[in-house]
Amino acid sequence: MELGVILQKVRNESPLIHNITNVVVTNFTANGLLALGASPVMAYAAEEVADMAKIAGALVLNIGTLNPEVVESMLIAGRAANEHGVPVILDPVGAGATPYRTSTAQKLLKELTISAIRGNAAEIANIAGQNWSIKGVDGAAGSGDVLELAKSAARMFHTVVAITGKEDIVSDGSITLTVKNGHPILTKVTGAGCLLSAIVGAFTAVEKNPVHSVAAALAYYGVAAEIAAERTSEAGPGSFQIELLNQLALVTPYEVEKRGIITLGGAANVH
Amino acid sequence: MELGVILQKVRNESPLIHNITNVVVTNFTANGLLALGASPVMAYAAEEVADMAKIAGALVLNIGTLNPEVVESMLIAGRAANEHGVPVILDPVGAGATPYRTSTAQKLLKELTISAIRGNAAEIANIAGQNWSIKGVDGAAGSGDVLELAKSAARMFHTVVAITGKEDIVSDGSITLTVKNGHPILTKVTGAGCLLSAIVGAFTAVEKNPVHSVAAALAYYGVAAEIAAERTSEAGPGSFQIELLNQLALVTPYEVEKRGIITLGGAANVH
Amino acid sequence: MELGVILQKVRNESPLIHNITNVVVTNFTANGLLALGASPVMAYAAEEVADMAKIAGALVLNIGTLNPEVVESMLIAGRAANEHGVPVILDPVGAGATPYRTSTAQKLLKELTISAIRGNAAEIANIAGQNWSIKGVDGAAGSGDVLELAKSAARMFHTVVAITGKEDIVSDGSITLTVKNGHPILTKVTGAGCLLSAIVGAFTAVEKNPVHSVAAALAYYGVAAEIAAERTSEAGPGSFQIELLNQLALVTPYEVEKRGIITLGGAANVH
Repeated sequence: MELGVILQKVRNESPLIHNITNVVVTNFTANGLLALGASPVMAYAAEEVADMAKIAGALVLNIGTLNPEVVESMLIAGRAANEHGVPVILDPVGAGATPYRTSTAQKLLKELTISAIRGNAAEIANIAGQNWSIKGVDGAAGSGDVLELAKSAARMFHTVVAITGKEDIVSDGSITLTVKNGHPILTKVTGAGCLLSAIVGAFTAVEKNPVHSVAAALAYYGVAAEIAAERTSEAGPGSFQIELLNQLALVTPYEVEKRGIITLGGAANVH
Repeated sequence: MELGVILQKVRNESPLIHNITNVVVTNFTANGLLALGASPVMAYAAEEVADMAKIAGALVLNIGTLNPEVVESMLIAGRAANEHGVPVILDPVGAGATPYRTSTAQKLLKELTISAIRGNAAEIANIAGQNWSIKGVDGAAGSGDVLELAKSAARMFHTVVAITGKEDIVSDGSITLTVKNGHPILTKVTGAGCLLSAIVGAFTAVEKNPVHSVAAALAYYGVAAEIAAERTSEAGPGSFQIELLNQLALVTPYEVEKRGIITLGGAANVH
Repeated sequence: MELGVILQKVRNESPLIHNITNVVVTNFTANGLLALGASPVMAYAAEEVADMAKIAGALVLNIGTLNPEVVESMLIAGRAANEHGVPVILDPVGAGATPYRTSTAQKLLKELTISAIRGNAAEIANIAGQNWSIKGVDGAAGSGDVLELAKSAARMFHTVVAITGKEDIVSDGSITLTVKNGHPILTKVTGAGCLLSAIVGAFTAVEKNPVHSVAAALAYYGVAAEIAAERTSEAGPGSFQIELLNQLALVTPYEVEKRGIITLGGAANVH
């Protein structure tokens, strides 16, 4: 897997990423995708989501502020995406925090073909029927075995699962990778995970092996966050947020290759 | 009242703050709460708001872009919060600008037990049935007696009323405090008041005396704004907005104690 | 046309701008209007939009994340604005990307009196029935004659048409102006066009000749963007976005007069 090549491909092709996402993160998600070099579009209405999804490079579904109308639009868009071979990414924000979120995430997984799920450990555990603790939409790092959780969830849902946290795990049930980039201050920026899910969509739009596309997206994002944190270390989360947008635009394929750390399982560096 | 102690308690406990707020300020509110050290969650659907409100440390209702579905969700969430002893904060954004906003604010006050209301003078006057001038959601500083307005509104609604402006007034009808922190450039950042209401929620989640929690939240926010303005004085409102997020994270309990100015009524410094 | 005079008038009068806009750009639009010196308000509910529109200085309709309820509110608000002589601005975001967007933009143009439309070439071409290519909400610069498109669309819809891109064209069908300010990095900030449409609303609120108000708004915005880009040239789109908000507040009437480049047709400088 050549991380820099996939990043360059996103920038060259500028795929259209159709987001049905929550009202908290729409602006930051769109700006992050633009900074990366992708083309964001948000469209929610049942009247148009099929038309938009079918011309997109990827469809990203995020349940952060869901309601019945939005869920219906997600199903319509997801079916159109599935019919046209457009990859669908799911971000199960806050699954486990309320029964409605958990059941909606499970419904989307049941009715649609999902290329990848990205969430924290508690969210993934909850949609997989394991009762990990969660507070609101900030998943507490559970005590369980995150590597095993990623594998079993990937097998259960026949998809690629990315669990992000101190270290990120990517698994399709047989191959499991660990991505060791990123920075803790990301947890102080709302929608940092949601934007990452959208970026996973952009990478999956141009690289059809989803384990590779997801791991490359995570490494790219982690490297950008590391550089942004280095440059704004003492300034606070406001400055970091802005510098993250800068670095998503500025980070080069070479830097991602050089700084990206991806290991097979929890062990040897395979990158 | 020890301002620094309450701030430290918020940071230690990181209360979950459930916001049902307007679409303009969701991102800024969430980032401000994260910067403070609280855990924001936005949830709007009737299907889940009761589940979210009952596990929250506080529920913050903001009518800035209301519609009938959101109002229904506010009532459901508010009842669940009331049943579980979760304090409810109301921000009556734009009350007085349209009859719908005024009557909705009044309905929420009638049907729910509200721990505190935060608004500008015109908003509070309008929901109290006094016809102060208001332009859109930016309340003009009326000519009336703001101290008296806060007291009478607190008595009328059996709640703590915070009227923010050049000076901030906090009253429960018997005790009335004036908070003399803040900076005029806050009026150039959309949602500066809405974020303050959410922060009032975070402080009220950890300090059960609402006059104290509200005054402490106002002093903390005002001190952060003052420092942010000092650091970005000539740069403009964009830079100030980012530095405010920084300072919400960086300001120490000691700085808030040292710079916070809270007086009893309009007179003696009681802090 | 005296560019500086119109800008100063906006700042002196601080018109209330009622926006019914998309969920991606609400915060940035509100902050940009505040930075300019206008008073933004967002109100969407059928229950209140007529009350808000009739007291506004301008109504700005943006179809970026439309749904049937919002379209109904746009019609109600638009009729109230029309009845009370409040100018209405239309931003047909993504017209052409889906049939729903195209037909909704056309419906608004048919049922309401619109003072000005602002969009990119593909959006304007699509609502005028010309099939220019568009990808999502980012209009590709078509190969057609943009000057001719602006003129013919203005005649077709009996309104002022502003097509923004590398150069901006403003036409009422007989007078056509070209505005040569701005910077390419604007395309890396989501909602840069949407904010411009809202600013067109603010200028049209205080200057009744819409060709003048629209051209002045475009020149002001372009000059602010140029200065912001000069100050943040290498830093990236995050820093540019914040500096743009700064410059919208800081740029003086004198600077706009000095740097604004407006030519008649595509030729002689008429400013």
